[in-house]
Amino acid sequence: MITVPQIWAHLDGLAKPRRSLGRLEAMAARLAAIQQTLAPATRPRRLVLFAGDHGVVARGVSMWPSEVTSLMVGTILAGRASSSVLAKAHDCSLRLVDVGVAADPSPSPPPFFRYARVARGTRDLSVEPAMTPEQFEQAWNVGSDEAAAAIGDGNVVLLAGEMGIGNTTSTACLTALLANTTPENAVGIGAGADQSTLQTKQLIVSQAVERARPGNAQEVRGAIAALAGFEIAAMAGFFAAGARLGATLLLDGYVATAAALVAERLQPGTVSSMIAAHRSAEPGHGAALAHLELEPLLDWGMRLGEGTGALVALPLIDSAAALLREVASLSELGVARED
Amino acid sequence: MITVPQIWAHLDGLAKPRRSLGRLEAMAARLAAIQQTLAPATRPRRLVLFAGDHGVVARGVSMWPSEVTSLMVGTILAGRASSSVLAKAHDCSLRLVDVGVAADPSPSPPPFFRYARVARGTRDLSVEPAMTPEQFEQAWNVGSDEAAAAIGDGNVVLLAGEMGIGNTTSTACLTALLANTTPENAVGIGAGADQSTLQTKQLIVSQAVERARPGNAQEVRGAIAALAGFEIAAMAGFFAAGARLGATLLLDGYVATAAALVAERLQPGTVSSMIAAHRSAEPGHGAALAHLELEPLLDWGMRLGEGTGALVALPLIDSAAALLREVASLSELGVARED
Repeated sequence: MITVPQIWAHLDGLAKPRRSLGRLEAMAARLAAIQQTLAPATRPRRLVLFAGDHGVVARGVSMWPSEVTSLMVGTILAGRASSSVLAKAHDCSLRLVDVGVAADPSPSPPPFFRYARVARGTRDLSVEPAMTPEQFEQAWNVGSDEAAAAIGDGNVVLLAGEMGIGNTTSTACLTALLANTTPENAVGIGAGADQSTLQTKQLIVSQAVERARPGNAQEVRGAIAALAGFEIAAMAGFFAAGARLGATLLLDGYVATAAALVAERLQPGTVSSMIAAHRSAEPGHGAALAHLELEPLLDWGMRLGEGTGALVALPLIDSAAALLREVASLSELGVARED
Repeated sequence: MITVPQIWAHLDGLAKPRRSLGRLEAMAARLAAIQQTLAPATRPRRLVLFAGDHGVVARGVSMWPSEVTSLMVGTILAGRASSSVLAKAHDCSLRLVDVGVAADPSPSPPPFFRYARVARGTRDLSVEPAMTPEQFEQAWNVGSDEAAAAIGDGNVVLLAGEMGIGNTTSTACLTALLANTTPENAVGIGAGADQSTLQTKQLIVSQAVERARPGNAQEVRGAIAALAGFEIAAMAGFFAAGARLGATLLLDGYVATAAALVAERLQPGTVSSMIAAHRSAEPGHGAALAHLELEPLLDWGMRLGEGTGALVALPLIDSAAALLREVASLSELGVARED
């Protein structure tokens, strides 16, 4: 067992002014604590993207139609989406799992695609539960299997991302349910919403959360299923298995953080394997991160999803790992600390 | 000529919600404007480290002795300093130029080392000019030659860093002189200073700036020479030549920014080729960046120097370039903007 004081003693012994790399050192310390080594690894790494549609889109919560989910799945498969391009730039393998898209799937997908649909989109959470507890379990298992496979392939850092028009509505519901925040604070513009769309979204979120809120702790799983998306359930299972199996998890934006809230609630301790990549432009994201006691690396007003925030932050953890692994110690140089 | 509106029209046409990558898009726009292309490049890239000593160290402005400059030069040459490790992690070549170290040089340095000493350290700026205008010119030329050589070798992104015990004292003087800030605001702990060292440093900076402050605009070059370090003068020449020859400059921390202030004063327009990597823990750095109208990418409380902040930020500009170069446009996908 490597303790946090041992990690800081190592960092404070390196050939540089004490604590002079600020947040980079704090992140290095967290990475060492997660991996339980002073020589953490950040390669190989994999991003798994989960795609699913949302029945609630019929209520007008997004300015984009559900068809865009499948269109973006196609763009990812063609290597031309923001996530594909950033994954390639930062030496991160990518898989795409269709866990519940509504449209017909591509007839000849590439090998990094997996068809694992629970259903053709969730039901409309504004009028009925988005999914049954059994469907939640099924989507969760798709995610946990992906994490196990990624780790089996040797990956040490795992990233999850999502594609699903309407999923910030589901995310706002889960954030209000699990992070002690109000629906007003949990609702933002997502991928695009004008003022009237935003009001619709806020009303739907408050009513859905009110209806789903469980009377007792045992019912929380049912409440989560009533508000989730298949891609969110899958990401939650992915995080839970990843943490259990010893991976380092790099957390993306608002939707991924809703999955982290779910994972932490159902498997407490999951979040201690996580590093938060960024705080997004969505107002509820800050509340969700604070609830999980995660301090994000970047505060850049990103709100794209697809794992893009985690991919942008990925080389920052490479820096932290390199520092720990390779910088000389002052004692090797025969110098005493002066500061 | 590619205009800023043309660059934003391109970004706004990509297959993602409009402006959904926040600061990453702002940086992509700046990169495209600097390189005058919608397909900017970030490789190959080079970090040039300039090392020099400071006569003012005799006055007790740092908790580290001047010998540490040469010790750290040795550590960089051995590939074991923070800068060496981060440069390797991010595929950045490195050169180290001794432009004024006090100690005897290494007898058998590696090929990436250049011996180009102006003198064995500057004179004590608290009692006399740190260097003559001729020495300033000589150090500046060492830097501009390095930039020209780096660009001649094909590098498109240039980083500069420094090693020099005592150089935050010189930096504070130049910041107070050139960025309209007070000596009190310009002085921080640098690589290490306790309360009494800090008071000494503040007193020295105020007196030196008062003495050097030119009576008229023509004398500013003399005032800069009186307060600079050889490594700062060399970085200033490096930036000026890099900008003139079309490179993209990624700016490190407080000391490098003092060199940017010098370069901008002597060659106006230099800063428009720069992207600021981070805002350091030194209080004067924010004032210097604001004076240059630069918005830093990271605010991580780093204060190591050696180019480390620029190296940590380097992959962030890789993300911006990849986004511009490779993401599909909505029109290719046959979709109209909805947001």
